[in-house]
Amino acid sequence: MGKKNKKKNNDAGEPGAAEQNLSVRDLLRVGPDFQLSAVDPRRIVAGPADKAEARAAAAALEGEVTEWQERLFAESKGGGQRRLLIVLQGMDTSGKGGAAKAIDRISEPIGLRMRSFGPPTREEKRRHFLWRINRALPPVGSIGIFDRSHYEDVLIVRVRNLVPEDIWSGRYDEINDWEKKLTDGGLVFLKCMLHISKEEQQQRLLDRLADPTKHWKYNPGDVDERQLWDQYQEAYQVALTRCSTDYAPWYVIPADRKWHRDWLLSNLVAETLREMNPQYPPTDFDVEVEKARVENS
Amino acid sequence: MGKKNKKKNNDAGEPGAAEQNLSVRDLLRVGPDFQLSAVDPRRIVAGPADKAEARAAAAALEGEVTEWQERLFAESKGGGQRRLLIVLQGMDTSGKGGAAKAIDRISEPIGLRMRSFGPPTREEKRRHFLWRINRALPPVGSIGIFDRSHYEDVLIVRVRNLVPEDIWSGRYDEINDWEKKLTDGGLVFLKCMLHISKEEQQQRLLDRLADPTKHWKYNPGDVDERQLWDQYQEAYQVALTRCSTDYAPWYVIPADRKWHRDWLLSNLVAETLREMNPQYPPTDFDVEVEKARVENS
Repeated sequence: MGKKNKKKNNDAGEPGAAEQNLSVRDLLRVGPDFQLSAVDPRRIVAGPADKAEARAAAAALEGEVTEWQERLFAESKGGGQRRLLIVLQGMDTSGKGGAAKAIDRISEPIGLRMRSFGPPTREEKRRHFLWRINRALPPVGSIGIFDRSHYEDVLIVRVRNLVPEDIWSGRYDEINDWEKKLTDGGLVFLKCMLHISKEEQQQRLLDRLADPTKHWKYNPGDVDERQLWDQYQEAYQVALTRCSTDYAPWYVIPADRKWHRDWLLSNLVAETLREMNPQYPPTDFDVEVEKARVENS
Repeated sequence: MGKKNKKKNNDAGEPGAAEQNLSVRDLLRVGPDFQLSAVDPRRIVAGPADKAEARAAAAALEGEVTEWQERLFAESKGGGQRRLLIVLQGMDTSGKGGAAKAIDRISEPIGLRMRSFGPPTREEKRRHFLWRINRALPPVGSIGIFDRSHYEDVLIVRVRNLVPEDIWSGRYDEINDWEKKLTDGGLVFLKCMLHISKEEQQQRLLDRLADPTKHWKYNPGDVDERQLWDQYQEAYQVALTRCSTDYAPWYVIPADRKWHRDWLLSNLVAETLREMNPQYPPTDFDVEVEKARVENS
């Protein structure tokens, strides 16, 4: 903690200000006319088109992000109720783990709560689909990362008919209502879909098969899922458009190039924290009195 | 993931083997005759006596630790039940947050579960003291870090008489029994006390008071706790000796020098994982068949 970053003190005349005005959120936000099929997973949306430069530029956000994190935590110690929840969704091999690592690289572990959601357990299946999600929310003052999330309940569940249609079809509104309630309570959502091409997924699966130390990551069932590629893209299309709200928008990240995915995500995180602009709480004790107490103790 | 590290393939004839035989665990383990008052918090126990060298040597463990982490996770996917829980205890300002950051630096965030324990909530107070701890255990295949732990229930609770003596005095055995049960189930404990001097704590508190952006970390109650320094040292002495078992030993880390603390802790983590020696599960599918399936999909 404590690495200082001058960026946010820049005014328009200083270097870096122009880049700061670029909003990756505006470029990636899912609006009403969004079409997933029109997004090129290999596209360079903004920023460095070179791998090494993109990696360095993302890494350079560490000072700023860790300071925001410290402020967010400090704010909560003064009674603040805000917290950030980063939701990562995407097809198998889309890089949710790698994306989480990219966030970790620019942030402090203590303020980060990672959670990944597999198939629901027997107990979780008996409960409302948001039950296990509610239990995993990050504490006030911290940042949570979800590797998969409640959106699986309108993705695999829809594609695989794991519950009847009259149940899953009501979940879009349920999710929106639930996210609204949380947003009103101080939670900020950053929902990111990592968008890879079908060809890239094929290559990544073959890479796993080629390396015996990656075999544990491979599941023959992944190919069954892959054969439902179009149905999944359709399920994503519906979820992204129906659940991209003004209070909790979706962002779609072209993810075929890992270094560009990480640059985009790092900037989404930095922009979101910049807008949250968390503040240190006021000092609620007499500093001179306390100095004397410590010195005499 | 996937950074390869050759260290563990060394045999006695190769460079690095001598260092590998050095066991930080043996140097720091709390045995039956342990006296906390005899441990010098500024002592350099082993390894580099220079800050930059120590930092570099700790960082160099990343490749090995992340590979163990990946193997531990992979092992659990094949049915393994093992997990690692790192418990961090120490006086205020002893650097539990900084120590957690040191572990984060050499590991993968996805396999890491951080948890810090403050004063128990109203609900937690109504429950058995191990209730909230059980709920926070890391999942099988992962590494948990506790910033404070169930040991607070025989530390502040004992010093401050928060429950009657006949209750807290029984907790040492309860903790040992509970840790034994978990160990038998595949959980490995790495319990570390960060040991700072009273003078160092004074300096760190004054540093916080000197920096307005650190005021939120300062609590006038910290000085009240500090005035009970000797009682806390005694409570630690009892907890460390009564609860350092062969299946879940305590390690005491001299922590006045942050870079030495981090070097020791990083090596404790690496040694523990090396001994656990997690293994990739066997491949349970036909690789050629799967290659063909992926290629044709």
